[in-house]
Amino acid sequence: MRALVFDGTLSLSEIPAPVPAAGEALIRVEYSAICNTDIELTRGYLGFRGVPGHEFVGVVEQGSAALRGKRVVGEINCPCGNCALCRRALPTHCSQRTMLGIAGRPGVFAEYVALPEANLHCVPDYLASVRALFTEPLAAALQIFEQFHIRPTDRIILLGTGKLGLLTALVLQQGGYHYTAYNRNPRKIKLAQTLGINCRPLAELPPDERVDVCIDCTGNPQGMALALQHVRPRGTIVLKTTVADPAAFDINQIVINELTLIGSRCGPFAPALAMLAADRINPEPLVSAEFTFTNIVAAFTAAQKSDTVKVIINHA
Amino acid sequence: MRALVFDGTLSLSEIPAPVPAAGEALIRVEYSAICNTDIELTRGYLGFRGVPGHEFVGVVEQGSAALRGKRVVGEINCPCGNCALCRRALPTHCSQRTMLGIAGRPGVFAEYVALPEANLHCVPDYLASVRALFTEPLAAALQIFEQFHIRPTDRIILLGTGKLGLLTALVLQQGGYHYTAYNRNPRKIKLAQTLGINCRPLAELPPDERVDVCIDCTGNPQGMALALQHVRPRGTIVLKTTVADPAAFDINQIVINELTLIGSRCGPFAPALAMLAADRINPEPLVSAEFTFTNIVAAFTAAQKSDTVKVIINHA
Repeated sequence: MRALVFDGTLSLSEIPAPVPAAGEALIRVEYSAICNTDIELTRGYLGFRGVPGHEFVGVVEQGSAALRGKRVVGEINCPCGNCALCRRALPTHCSQRTMLGIAGRPGVFAEYVALPEANLHCVPDYLASVRALFTEPLAAALQIFEQFHIRPTDRIILLGTGKLGLLTALVLQQGGYHYTAYNRNPRKIKLAQTLGINCRPLAELPPDERVDVCIDCTGNPQGMALALQHVRPRGTIVLKTTVADPAAFDINQIVINELTLIGSRCGPFAPALAMLAADRINPEPLVSAEFTFTNIVAAFTAAQKSDTVKVIINHA
Repeated sequence: MRALVFDGTLSLSEIPAPVPAAGEALIRVEYSAICNTDIELTRGYLGFRGVPGHEFVGVVEQGSAALRGKRVVGEINCPCGNCALCRRALPTHCSQRTMLGIAGRPGVFAEYVALPEANLHCVPDYLASVRALFTEPLAAALQIFEQFHIRPTDRIILLGTGKLGLLTALVLQQGGYHYTAYNRNPRKIKLAQTLGINCRPLAELPPDERVDVCIDCTGNPQGMALALQHVRPRGTIVLKTTVADPAAFDINQIVINELTLIGSRCGPFAPALAMLAADRINPEPLVSAEFTFTNIVAAFTAAQKSDTVKVIINHA
């Protein structure tokens, strides 16, 4: 099969199709999408080598009768099921886990991918694939609400409206929360506003503004410093990005102001898929460009431009 | 009156007695105690100048009839009562506040101190002053439980058994929590064990041990790094000290392992005083040495020795 292989550089190569292990399905990839993690992997993150990609919609070609022929999305963490963390219902933190297209398991930038059937969620017929494709990043946005109770009276600042920031803002918007999103990039502000998001230029954030909850989706080392500046004492900072630069902020402010800092990562697929299926969130305007699979190397170049939001790949 | 004055060096000096403002009481200090913050102030923390000291027991000499002649302890934060934070019931974070012996208000290492009557708590007759003296640091230990729900099933590591660590361990011990305290100093381990605390040498902490809650009372820049190593995914780190060195740990682990980090500072006096009065916590064994007020400069030297726990001053 053809697959995008990273061995220091990215190239479309002919490699053997995956052979599903016991309990796994073989899925023909229909659509995939490029995530910031994919870009980081090609910049050296985790010393990655192999086929990247973890956001996808596909059709099960081999697997149990209940799944065969079904259109599916899939969770990216493949836990062992036996370790202390799995037994404590923390499978996304399983110490033995593989991660689709990230660690120990070839990803979805390929014609076929193998994944445990337990990881698959069927996509309702009436939900378009280009929308279902956003299940994984929308689940990551919902994880904030899974970890932490945001109250109707809480005032919220959302820093950053990239891919994850926009999806988080859409969830805040449809939930009726009292939030303001901030960004530096005028085109991204415009896009957010087009989506009905309350998004303002970062320059308009008053220096003395202090809110109950700051959500850092900047993907920027300075995000934490901004969050620390704008959260009230005993407030909460939710950290969604792994690029915080400890040198850029004063961690002692966490003690002095008795802050709560919550790290947040992968989230629950079922409610994300349900939100998309119920049309409560329409992620389609986030698609900046669609590439054919043959042009996937060019798609990676496009995905790294600052005005780009989501780049998707049509594998047909 | 005589007072310990810090003007770059510490000296016992003759200065005017404080004149209580409206709503304030004048208190004759009976006992005071040296806290790590006091030591930090004499090393340059906050650029402090003046009379330090905030842990005390004293007798009200001037004030309202209900308080006159009463033995009291006092909360250290003096809030404005009017700002947005005060109105949100966050007086200990009031942006206009003075702090007894720390910022904007002379402290208790003196014959007399003035403090708002609203800050005072009467000490029951049957509670010895040397025990009541621990109300403030015990309140700081209780603040952990005020901010965060520790479950009976949670496994807890307490890092550091200095003054605050020992008090926190005593609270965990008497509450029946499943904890282990760790320290490097054999004499402090011995003292903790004498108090019935489950305290082990840090060298015995298994490298792969991962618990639900890590409480950092080390007062040591490496405490956070140890806590990050020993908390399980989705676990909680409580940070009680303001000396964390961001360069010494990888903050991204907070996102990757979806940790919650809670900064914790001053706590509630009423339950601390009630615990002491009910003899649920006996802090007397923490007293390493008692000095007369005349020898308070020597008391500061003694308080900085590594084997010392609490140094108290008898003002009689």
